[in-house]
Amino acid sequence: MKLEQRLDAAAITEFLNEVFPGAMEAFAIEAVGPMTATVRMFFRDYRLRPGGTISGPSLMTLADTATWVALLAMIGREPLSVTSHLDIDFLRKPAPADVLGHATLHKVGKRLAVGDVLMYSDGETQACARSSVTYAIPTHRLDPPVD
Amino acid sequence: MKLEQRLDAAAITEFLNEVFPGAMEAFAIEAVGPMTATVRMFFRDYRLRPGGTISGPSLMTLADTATWVALLAMIGREPLSVTSHLDIDFLRKPAPADVLGHATLHKVGKRLAVGDVLMYSDGETQACARSSVTYAIPTHRLDPPVD
Amino acid sequence: MKLEQRLDAAAITEFLNEVFPGAMEAFAIEAVGPMTATVRMFFRDYRLRPGGTISGPSLMTLADTATWVALLAMIGREPLSVTSHLDIDFLRKPAPADVLGHATLHKVGKRLAVGDVLMYSDGETQACARSSVTYAIPTHRLDPPVD
Amino acid sequence: MKLEQRLDAAAITEFLNEVFPGAMEAFAIEAVGPMTATVRMFFRDYRLRPGGTISGPSLMTLADTATWVALLAMIGREPLSVTSHLDIDFLRKPAPADVLGHATLHKVGKRLAVGDVLMYSDGETQACARSSVTYAIPTHRLDPPVD
Repeated sequence: MKLEQRLDAAAITEFLNEVFPGAMEAFAIEAVGPMTATVRMFFRDYRLRPGGTISGPSLMTLADTATWVALLAMIGREPLSVTSHLDIDFLRKPAPADVLGHATLHKVGKRLAVGDVLMYSDGETQACARSSVTYAIPTHRLDPPVD
Repeated sequence: MKLEQRLDAAAITEFLNEVFPGAMEAFAIEAVGPMTATVRMFFRDYRLRPGGTISGPSLMTLADTATWVALLAMIGREPLSVTSHLDIDFLRKPAPADVLGHATLHKVGKRLAVGDVLMYSDGETQACARSSVTYAIPTHRLDPPVD
Repeated sequence: MKLEQRLDAAAITEFLNEVFPGAMEAFAIEAVGPMTATVRMFFRDYRLRPGGTISGPSLMTLADTATWVALLAMIGREPLSVTSHLDIDFLRKPAPADVLGHATLHKVGKRLAVGDVLMYSDGETQACARSSVTYAIPTHRLDPPVD
Repeated sequence: MKLEQRLDAAAITEFLNEVFPGAMEAFAIEAVGPMTATVRMFFRDYRLRPGGTISGPSLMTLADTATWVALLAMIGREPLSVTSHLDIDFLRKPAPADVLGHATLHKVGKRLAVGDVLMYSDGETQACARSSVTYAIPTHRLDPPVD
């Protein structure tokens, strides 16, 4: 079955604010397409670590969020998908700046979705981190399965 | 070369407060031994997610911290080790409570240290998450290499 | 629901030879318990790499097999579980010898099972590799779900 | 420092046959560019699993090989780089056919190189697996470090 994009950036932002108030305070969806999403994580002082770098857990949150946004675009308003696996490689010290996360989904199945995320300090061309993320999708969703 | 434990819980806590002020506000080192550490992450309201569960990034922070504590016990006062890789599997919804992270190091080499972390909601016997973490150790440390 | 062990080493070996002829030619199940299994991978010349070390893919196969054995012990004769994720850290050069893989399952759910594997060259006390493995379990199994 | 490609496909094939006889019997380098490589894994009967699918360890070997080829292109004739970490997500059953692995390096540092690999059954447009691979690079290489 062919997957088609169901939600655009505005619809996803509205949905996330509804089901998860505050989740998007520090994030903005820059772009959403079929199986892809770009999410900006705003610089915040509390993200800093000694040495002026963005904390690892902040980057993990960005990877997780960018993948979730890409997934919602494809499966629609489903609040109960949960991250089942995340791995991340820290490649370079991120600058004290916004970070952009580019997520690409490689599979959206009946039960699992898997994607990769590349993260860049705003304005940089070399990734500061790479991540892959798996979401478990509830089986009894209202929408018909997408596989 | 045989590795021996260099720092105990009190010495590690003192060191972390020194090089990374605030890092241990929400954590306590419960136990440290050769190649192992148990770290408690205190429950905080800001860790909650809809459904009353502890957030994924909080668990990743615990995994990272527990591994760092186990590593410092073995290599001594070295502030410049950095996480190069972390992966985590979310197994069960953590309760709205403290979470305990038990880290075991499998290798502390000249350049890399690798460990596993099992995480449990306080009082539970089934893990809510498992993680493995790799730290890159600076090559020009004052202490002689431990490999 | 409480999980109980359903198959012992002999029953698993018989089942694997039945559904996957040849799979156990190079492996022997040393021990099986609730949520654990120890599998021996016999030394074979074709596993060698330059330098006299066991190849990475051989160790991955051992990690995968040891987890599968531990899973079969818990869920019974189910041929259709498939590996959905595997990660491995290579810690030390394995000797040109048998390798033992100790698998521990942390979760056997309705849909996913997750375990860790530590691998040791026969006779060694320091792990040559660590791995974590996720199996996707078919939803329409004949046996009732185990979660 | 800017990294530049040092070896092309023919030079890498020659080098691999030299240091690791037989390694490329079942593989062909299809393309090499700056920080990228595409490697074809030839179909072989011994790669089959029940159900007519390519085995997981075969795909792991492809991921590892494609990353190594991409790395050699950048750092030159260095036989002693070793895989330190590999993770793989199995997304779809691969067909009984050649599999193509597209590797992209995100970092080639002094000590570590990290890349992603997407794998496709020949002729397919949906990936059968994704992988990320870390190589540890020897510090005392003859060539100057590339970071």
